Amino acid sequence: MFSKLVIFGVGLIGGSLARALRKAGCQGELIGVGRTLASITRAAVLGVIDRAITLDDEASLINALIHADWVVLAAPVAQTHALLARIAPYLQRHTIVTDAGSTKVSVVRAARSALGDKIGQFVPAHPIAGRELHGVDAALHDLYAGRNVVLCPLTENSPDALARVAELWRTVGAQVHIMTAEQHDRVFASVSHLPHLLAFALMEQLLSADDAALKLTFAGSSFRDFTRIAASSPEMWRDICLANRTMLLADLDAYIAVLGTLRAALDQSDSTTLERVFTRAAQVGQP
Amino acid sequence: MFSKLVIFGVGLIGGSLARALRKAGCQGELIGVGRTLASITRAAVLGVIDRAITLDDEASLINALIHADWVVLAAPVAQTHALLARIAPYLQRHTIVTDAGSTKVSVVRAARSALGDKIGQFVPAHPIAGRELHGVDAALHDLYAGRNVVLCPLTENSPDALARVAELWRTVGAQVHIMTAEQHDRVFASVSHLPHLLAFALMEQLLSADDAALKLTFAGSSFRDFTRIAASSPEMWRDICLANRTMLLADLDAYIAVLGTLRAALDQSDSTTLERVFTRAAQVGQP
Repeated sequence: MFSKLVIFGVGLIGGSLARALRKAGCQGELIGVGRTLASITRAAVLGVIDRAITLDDEASLINALIHADWVVLAAPVAQTHALLARIAPYLQRHTIVTDAGSTKVSVVRAARSALGDKIGQFVPAHPIAGRELHGVDAALHDLYAGRNVVLCPLTENSPDALARVAELWRTVGAQVHIMTAEQHDRVFASVSHLPHLLAFALMEQLLSADDAALKLTFAGSSFRDFTRIAASSPEMWRDICLANRTMLLADLDAYIAVLGTLRAALDQSDSTTLERVFTRAAQVGQP
Repeated sequence: MFSKLVIFGVGLIGGSLARALRKAGCQGELIGVGRTLASITRAAVLGVIDRAITLDDEASLINALIHADWVVLAAPVAQTHALLARIAPYLQRHTIVTDAGSTKVSVVRAARSALGDKIGQFVPAHPIAGRELHGVDAALHDLYAGRNVVLCPLTENSPDALARVAELWRTVGAQVHIMTAEQHDRVFASVSHLPHLLAFALMEQLLSADDAALKLTFAGSSFRDFTRIAASSPEMWRDICLANRTMLLADLDAYIAVLGTLRAALDQSDSTTLERVFTRAAQVGQP
C-alpha cells in the first residue's frame, strides 16, 4: 500500500486513518506532522504514528517528504494552501497527495495555486465520518468501516493515482464514490454544513436567554441532539463554513425562507400548513 | 396507588405510563379510552390496559368515569378541552385528573373552561420523556425511569391532590419538579418546541431541492439527528406548536435573528464572529 506515508494533522480524521491502515495490516512507516510538539508527540505516544515531526522542523520535514510515497492532508481546510505550498518543492513525481477535507471547491483552488504543474498528483477526497469528539485521543481504527468516501478527481489526475487513492480508502473499509468538487460542496452544504450552523445558532440563541441555566436543566433528547452537533470543533467548522461559503449561504437563505413560511403559519394559527410540512418532514426518516 | 385509572389516549406516553404502573406493582384496573376501536383494542391486546373503551361508547365511558379514582389525559394537547368537557359531568369529587401534555398554559386555559368549579381536581403535568417512535407499540415500562416530570400546580389544587400526582410519577421512577405553566412553556419552547420546528424546517428545505435524493444518500450523522427529531408525530407537533404559539414565536424570532447574524458573518467572511459563536456553542455540550 505504502512504504512511507506522511500525514499532516494527526487528529480524529488523520489519526483514525493511521490506526485503520495499521489495523488493515499495512507495514509502511507512518509519519505524522503537527503544528505543536505536544499534539504530535501525543500521537506518537499513543502509537498512532511511528514518527512525529513538527511543522517548523524544516530538515526532518524535507527528509520525510523526499522519501514519501504518500502525503495525506488531514488538517483544517483553511490550511490547505499553506501546507501544500510548503510541501510542493520537495514533492517527488511518484508521490500521491490526497486530503480529507470537508469541502472540495476551495481545496482544489488552493491545491492548484500551491502545486502548480504538480496538481495531477493531488487527488481530492472526503471521508464522510466523524465523531463529536476531536483530537488524536478520539481516533478509532474503525472510523471509516462501512462509511462513504467521496473522491473528486481532477482532469489532471492519472487513472492510476485515482485508483490508488480509492484503494487506500477501501483498505480501511470505506465505500468510494465519485463526484465533481461542485456537486460535493452542494451536497454537503445541505446535509452537513447547514445542520451544524443551525445547531451552533440554537446554542447561541439559548445562551442569550436570561433563564438559560434553567432551560438547560430541562433539555430533552431533541435539544441534546443539537448540543452534540454543536460540540464539534469550532475552528474546523469556522473553516468549513468559510470554505463553502457560497453554497452554504444559498442553503441558509433557502432555510430562512422555510422558517419564514412556518413563522407565518404559526402566527396565523394555520394548522393545515404546519401539519402538511411536518408530515412531509416526518417521512424523510421512514425507511 | 389507584383502584381504577382511566387513560385517555393510549399511545407512547399513555401506554408507557400504564406499563410502568403495572411494572411498579400497582394492582388497580387500567382502562384505556381511544378515538378508534383499532388503536384502543391494540393496547388491550398488548396487555397495556385491562379494558378498552372507544370515545363514542357513551355508556361504558360514563360507567368508567363514575368509578374512576384517577383520570389521565395522554392525548394530543389540542383535544384537552373537548375531552375534559366530556369528562366533567361524570367526575366524582374524589377523582384526580392529570395530564401529560407538552404545553401547559393552553392546557390550563382549556381545563378551566371545561371543568369550571371542578378545576381544583386537575393537576397539570408534563413528563419529559419520549421516543421518535409513537403509538402504543412503542410504549416502554421504563420510559419515565430517571426522567423529569414537571408539575404546574394551580392555586385551586389541594396539597393532597398535588402530592398524589407527584407520587404517581415517582412510582414510575421519575423526578418531580414544580414550575408555573408560564415558566414551563417558556422553557420548553426553547429546549423542545423550537428544536423540533427547526428539524421539520430542515427536511422541508432539503425536500425542495432538485437533488434531494442524492443529498439524502450522503446524509452524515448531524443530518440524521435532525431526521430523527423530524420523525416525531406531525399531528402532536402541530398541536404543540399551536398551543405554545406565542412563546414559540418569540423564540423563533430570536433564532431567526441569530441566523441573520451568522449569515452576515458568512457573507463578510468574518471568521472572528463565526469562531466566537461556534466556540461558545461548543461549550454547552461540555460537562
